[in-house]
Amino acid sequence: MSLTVVGSVAFDALETPFGKRDKILGGAATHFSLSSSFFTDVRCVGVVGNDFGEEEWEVFRSHHINTDDVEVVADGKTFFWRGRYEYDLNTAHTLETQLNVFETFNPKLSDASKNNRLLFLANILPMLQKEVREQCPNAEFVAMDTMNFWIDSMKEAVIDTIKIVDCVIINDAEARQLADVPNVITAAKKILSWGPKAVVIKRGEYGAALFTADSYFAIPAYPLESVFDPTGAGDTFAGGFMGYLASQEKIDDAAMRRAMIYGSVMASFNVEKFGTERVADLGYLEINQRFSDFKRFTNFEEIPFERANTAV
Amino acid sequence: MSLTVVGSVAFDALETPFGKRDKILGGAATHFSLSSSFFTDVRCVGVVGNDFGEEEWEVFRSHHINTDDVEVVADGKTFFWRGRYEYDLNTAHTLETQLNVFETFNPKLSDASKNNRLLFLANILPMLQKEVREQCPNAEFVAMDTMNFWIDSMKEAVIDTIKIVDCVIINDAEARQLADVPNVITAAKKILSWGPKAVVIKRGEYGAALFTADSYFAIPAYPLESVFDPTGAGDTFAGGFMGYLASQEKIDDAAMRRAMIYGSVMASFNVEKFGTERVADLGYLEINQRFSDFKRFTNFEEIPFERANTAV
Repeated sequence: MSLTVVGSVAFDALETPFGKRDKILGGAATHFSLSSSFFTDVRCVGVVGNDFGEEEWEVFRSHHINTDDVEVVADGKTFFWRGRYEYDLNTAHTLETQLNVFETFNPKLSDASKNNRLLFLANILPMLQKEVREQCPNAEFVAMDTMNFWIDSMKEAVIDTIKIVDCVIINDAEARQLADVPNVITAAKKILSWGPKAVVIKRGEYGAALFTADSYFAIPAYPLESVFDPTGAGDTFAGGFMGYLASQEKIDDAAMRRAMIYGSVMASFNVEKFGTERVADLGYLEINQRFSDFKRFTNFEEIPFERANTAV
Repeated sequence: MSLTVVGSVAFDALETPFGKRDKILGGAATHFSLSSSFFTDVRCVGVVGNDFGEEEWEVFRSHHINTDDVEVVADGKTFFWRGRYEYDLNTAHTLETQLNVFETFNPKLSDASKNNRLLFLANILPMLQKEVREQCPNAEFVAMDTMNFWIDSMKEAVIDTIKIVDCVIINDAEARQLADVPNVITAAKKILSWGPKAVVIKRGEYGAALFTADSYFAIPAYPLESVFDPTGAGDTFAGGFMGYLASQEKIDDAAMRRAMIYGSVMASFNVEKFGTERVADLGYLEINQRFSDFKRFTNFEEIPFERANTAV
């Protein structure tokens, strides 16, 4: 086994300008697991209620995602989120949140989950992320996400967790909020200064950027004309990124750059249908096709300019 | 001679969170000329008043920009714009506009200006852009900009001009407004369908994208920690793009891709100081250094993924 993710498994109700779904499989750990399952063996750590049905388990099972550490609370209900997106799909409005069994989520990692080579701490209470990270002293590469809610209410706890991970995967606005600076480059450098080896900034339709101590890498997003539902795009990106890294013997700058592309590729599929529908249905041919598209549409020849003649 | 630009030459008064300037050289044709002058011989067509002084002419002269077709109205004043930027520098608030001699601007192109190989129609009244374009039947490559004001008030006239140019260089929001669709990829394709061979979408701090009938190219922006003044960044981009193309024998997809990089490089310098201050002071070493930086921070190896083993 090689990758463990800890986070939410949920039901979502979604409204976008293009349609709605009343109750579909969602949650950060779900989107992450599904995406990473194309690249590596993944163990999902989470909690669900007795309303989590055969149809939902089948999505995990059919992608060989190990759910031994997904706790089932017999008398509880699964985390439920209802959201609505405006026309431009950039802002999600939360209409309803029922934490249910997730409110008292206390991740219980089996030895197998603790001993995986890579670990992803999806967006949960920062103190819980820290506890989980400390339970996995042998993990070679640990990444985390977080969100504005924790940055607002307990920034110091978020920073304490950042100090003991290898990589922070975070969106643009949250990076600026966390570092308390308006410039995203400055924000990423400040976050790096707290300890992690890498900071990945997610910019939605504008792409993503990777910062390390001595390297910078940036890519546009995959060009899409039909975006249906952005829910889970960030976790799907993280899943592609970490899943690809788990498949590589050496986690160096070159591998992280390719992982950025695979993350973007997976996220580009995720938004094409509701929830997990598109990624659950993916094949390797499509994945590698979009990877190769990325090469094609970012490629240019490096020819330094020399002025042949001047008007002087 | 090889490149002609038609547009505004102006004085700007600017306030940004980082300082202010009461009266500095500005205008679309100014920023464009200055930027393109590093790559080719450029002729600037515009109009100024009697307040345009030796200091301003010297900026043109020292960069070998031909100003024979910049009309001087003896009893008039130069176009004046006063603007203010908020903390995030993304939105310019116009505080004052004095069109002055620009109100009745009627571009008079000498034969030399008409016969240049490339032509750029900076943001002016679309009917004037069309007239100028028709005066230059031999131009090999004609590009244009426009703005929300004309799209709001005379969209059909803007489209009429687009039909007879080779390339539209426009910002993200304006492309969507012009094509009346929320998705920028769809917007670019719709604009392409009106006739031009290429559409360049400027996305500010998020980079730029190039669309042609059978190719797509996208790049992030140059990563900058200190952005002082975004005024003229779009025209400076266009100047680098068109100036570089003018230096190339063949204006094909590969040349346009490199031109996108040079445009981005020049724009990245423009925003580092007020008005024309930084670009007026540039050298080729710095320009080629940033071009090569672009190669470095967009580079990744194309290695298709193959799953070595699965849990099946």
